[in-house]
Amino acid sequence: MEQPSIIFRTVCPDRPGLVSQLTSWISDYGGNIKHSDHHTDQEAGLFLSRIEWDRKNLLINKSEIYEQFKKIAIDINGKFNINYSDEIPNVGIFVSKQNHCLIDLLWRVRNGELKMNVPLIISNHPDLENIARDFNAKFFFIDTSNCSKLSVEKQILSLLKDFDVELVVLAKYMQILSDSFLDNFSSIINIHHSFLPAFKGAQPYHRAWKRGVKLIGATAHYVTQDLDEGPIIEQCTVNVSHRDEVDDLIRKGRDIERIALARAVRLHLNHQIFVYDSKTAVFD
Amino acid sequence: MEQPSIIFRTVCPDRPGLVSQLTSWISDYGGNIKHSDHHTDQEAGLFLSRIEWDRKNLLINKSEIYEQFKKIAIDINGKFNINYSDEIPNVGIFVSKQNHCLIDLLWRVRNGELKMNVPLIISNHPDLENIARDFNAKFFFIDTSNCSKLSVEKQILSLLKDFDVELVVLAKYMQILSDSFLDNFSSIINIHHSFLPAFKGAQPYHRAWKRGVKLIGATAHYVTQDLDEGPIIEQCTVNVSHRDEVDDLIRKGRDIERIALARAVRLHLNHQIFVYDSKTAVFD
Amino acid sequence: MEQPSIIFRTVCPDRPGLVSQLTSWISDYGGNIKHSDHHTDQEAGLFLSRIEWDRKNLLINKSEIYEQFKKIAIDINGKFNINYSDEIPNVGIFVSKQNHCLIDLLWRVRNGELKMNVPLIISNHPDLENIARDFNAKFFFIDTSNCSKLSVEKQILSLLKDFDVELVVLAKYMQILSDSFLDNFSSIINIHHSFLPAFKGAQPYHRAWKRGVKLIGATAHYVTQDLDEGPIIEQCTVNVSHRDEVDDLIRKGRDIERIALARAVRLHLNHQIFVYDSKTAVFD
Amino acid sequence: MEQPSIIFRTVCPDRPGLVSQLTSWISDYGGNIKHSDHHTDQEAGLFLSRIEWDRKNLLINKSEIYEQFKKIAIDINGKFNINYSDEIPNVGIFVSKQNHCLIDLLWRVRNGELKMNVPLIISNHPDLENIARDFNAKFFFIDTSNCSKLSVEKQILSLLKDFDVELVVLAKYMQILSDSFLDNFSSIINIHHSFLPAFKGAQPYHRAWKRGVKLIGATAHYVTQDLDEGPIIEQCTVNVSHRDEVDDLIRKGRDIERIALARAVRLHLNHQIFVYDSKTAVFD
Repeated sequence: MEQPSIIFRTVCPDRPGLVSQLTSWISDYGGNIKHSDHHTDQEAGLFLSRIEWDRKNLLINKSEIYEQFKKIAIDINGKFNINYSDEIPNVGIFVSKQNHCLIDLLWRVRNGELKMNVPLIISNHPDLENIARDFNAKFFFIDTSNCSKLSVEKQILSLLKDFDVELVVLAKYMQILSDSFLDNFSSIINIHHSFLPAFKGAQPYHRAWKRGVKLIGATAHYVTQDLDEGPIIEQCTVNVSHRDEVDDLIRKGRDIERIALARAVRLHLNHQIFVYDSKTAVFD
Repeated sequence: MEQPSIIFRTVCPDRPGLVSQLTSWISDYGGNIKHSDHHTDQEAGLFLSRIEWDRKNLLINKSEIYEQFKKIAIDINGKFNINYSDEIPNVGIFVSKQNHCLIDLLWRVRNGELKMNVPLIISNHPDLENIARDFNAKFFFIDTSNCSKLSVEKQILSLLKDFDVELVVLAKYMQILSDSFLDNFSSIINIHHSFLPAFKGAQPYHRAWKRGVKLIGATAHYVTQDLDEGPIIEQCTVNVSHRDEVDDLIRKGRDIERIALARAVRLHLNHQIFVYDSKTAVFD
Repeated sequence: MEQPSIIFRTVCPDRPGLVSQLTSWISDYGGNIKHSDHHTDQEAGLFLSRIEWDRKNLLINKSEIYEQFKKIAIDINGKFNINYSDEIPNVGIFVSKQNHCLIDLLWRVRNGELKMNVPLIISNHPDLENIARDFNAKFFFIDTSNCSKLSVEKQILSLLKDFDVELVVLAKYMQILSDSFLDNFSSIINIHHSFLPAFKGAQPYHRAWKRGVKLIGATAHYVTQDLDEGPIIEQCTVNVSHRDEVDDLIRKGRDIERIALARAVRLHLNHQIFVYDSKTAVFD
Repeated sequence: MEQPSIIFRTVCPDRPGLVSQLTSWISDYGGNIKHSDHHTDQEAGLFLSRIEWDRKNLLINKSEIYEQFKKIAIDINGKFNINYSDEIPNVGIFVSKQNHCLIDLLWRVRNGELKMNVPLIISNHPDLENIARDFNAKFFFIDTSNCSKLSVEKQILSLLKDFDVELVVLAKYMQILSDSFLDNFSSIINIHHSFLPAFKGAQPYHRAWKRGVKLIGATAHYVTQDLDEGPIIEQCTVNVSHRDEVDDLIRKGRDIERIALARAVRLHLNHQIFVYDSKTAVFD
């Protein structure tokens, strides 16, 4: 039986000896490093490290691993995360009416590309319930027209708790989450249908068409309280021309939206992303 | 001896019969259409047409051709341009200190990719004089530090007139041309080192780096009085990652800047661009 | 009520006056040309023309239109096709075990991106029957292990006839169609998982990985009797690195396979493709 | 004064403890690791490591560093290279008649993008002598028409020795080097004007045009005795259409040829490439 990988990420002030310090105890225990990637951000004076290894015949349990890394992290004054490749997180997907990103994500889950469970799908419209059913996810239609945003978000937060959700993916969810929501739940990936920071906000394809751009883009990013200003994970573009109407931009955009979003979610699930200084470092 | 092509472009209100009306007189005279491309902008209600043909054995001179097209243009209420493939325009290139776009353009002229003469290069710095000499262009260093913008631009306009310049290319000219300059000379292509409309204005690479984008861009556009808001001709992008410092963005950007600019200039020289509604239609 | 577009395509020997001849009768009748695109292949001496127009208030029926174009086609010695935008063809999709191209095509049909009916799906494996059911298509599993190729293909041809199929799409159908099949039915689009002509034949991703390429590709093409040698419609590529195993190439490849195939099918359905000299001209 | 970086690369059989073993002695001496990148090729059972570090205040000289790494390399049964960022190699460029790759490389050297000296340029045609002069390189025209290949290559090898050349770049050198030449000098990067392995050998653009591909490519690779079969370093592609003649493919190809070649040379100069199993691993 294959042992799961242990993925250790840390960000700490740069100084000599870090790689050795982070890796020597693993080899002392007989652990086997599969991937090891380090980056120094000279300007920020920070050292970023991701080490993926397995225990093989090593008799060390999760809490001992945690203690070992915690000790090092304290010593190097670093923030750290430890993840295991066999821990499959629960992910909630939020949608409105458009189905392309939702179907695409669920198809990739089914094909084994995305290692996550999708126990629930939340929407402000009832349209996509069938898709949820096809993929055995619960669908919650939360009508926002007759409720205060506060009460809607309270319901959502309660669902996320009930379903033990670790990550939310906004797969064309055309609502803005309030600051107070984000204070309570902040691990959220959004797909924005423009090449950010161009065309922040509403109707980016209409505005791109009006501006006469020759390429359109899609941006997957973590959500923060500044709309469309969160750390960018992935961006894709596609050519357009004067022959393309707004509807063609929307059609072409769908293809890059689902690819950018799927790549970002995969990178997140594989623990390949570092977030700091409102930016990401993606170790791929 | 090969006859030059005649390139006719028109923009007019859309209505039935336009293609036939524009082409039938050419065939009546025995002219041979080599390329014929038409586009209807449904929203604007406009018809755009580009017809490239040659006279073969046809005994019709330039003024007769002009009169024929003018008659049709009046009838269809259109604006029109007539160009000949053997008319090689004089192009002035404006630069500051960076040489990559200048060398690239001059190399393409020498290789026959860009059908233009470059009789003069104007700069607010003396650095690139050698390059001008290598390619037999006059180099005018106009010191902007001790002169008013008005007087500098007056000198420039006078040079453009002296050298019979039809098109100006801003090949990394880090100065803003005044509205009054543009009133006097308006056929200008600029290369901006961002994916417009993102990062308009100064230091786009620094701002792109700070924002943490995953792609950077370059945009070639016609210059208008609204800074970086002119009609876009061509856009290119290239991937960047957290490993790239600002200097890497600048280095990678140079490659897409020169390609985007060269393509835009070539499209202009081949009369493949229509400008209307602050946008371009590029017939390629 | 909107009138359907009439799409006329012709290929004929090049000579003066063709554009006018093809378009003048349309305008004489008051028809309105929406798109008109012409290309001269100098080397082959051929003229290609695609004209899309609508009848508006014009009282001319399909057979009269046919007669008009036929008369012209005879005169110009051309082959021609006439299609109407409201004629939705029946398309048969052939699959084996992989589902990504099939789901993608069916999703695009449902979303209105691809104007076609999919009455039947044929497979040499039973695996994808569920998907067919989800999208209301009949699924025919034809076991090839106990039958001769001849008898299998006879069954298939009979089904294509029964369902009045005009186009077949091989959406990862891992079987080779015989010459005699292609003699009986030849309107077939295939997706090959390489950048043709590289890696023709079996296991292109394995061979690409072994060769150490830095980009992998997907090619949508019409099927001919020479395996993987048919006219290319669309090609896409994606970056790979030494970090990618064969499984990663397969995963990344799925995204470009479905995009290349969907674009090719769309271009075919919109009658934007010309085939001649074992190549395509794609008017987009 | 900034200390030069020390770049250590090794390839060895995979086993636990390698990262620690490679890095711990550096930190023991107070060296500072700037980049550290490791890759395990599971199939080949190999571990690849690149460590870039500087000595800061560390009093250890080059021969001591060599001894330290050699000791480790023997212990881990690995092949290794040690390079210093301030060692600027002499590079010979071979050309025929086309100038675009040559000018591009020399321009990048002058701009500081490529850290190399170009003391000599060798050609089988006299055409590009002027360019060599502009950039202060010696130009050797070696007429191949009246000499045996053996004698020509002997002259070349002698020149490479005289000028202490470490790397040869074939910048559109339209000659094939013999096996015996490659036995004597093997550090050679070539640019091939196709997307290898498609269109190996002569006239790839003509064949690509005839095949009707929708993308053309350029491939930079190390030269081996199997023509166009050497380890691939970098590949680029660009869209083409039926409107492009062979000359257009050649023109468009020039842009991707020079970019692919320049990237490959830069990666080589920065010691970011590993070659094994007829493939490269590029650590960028």
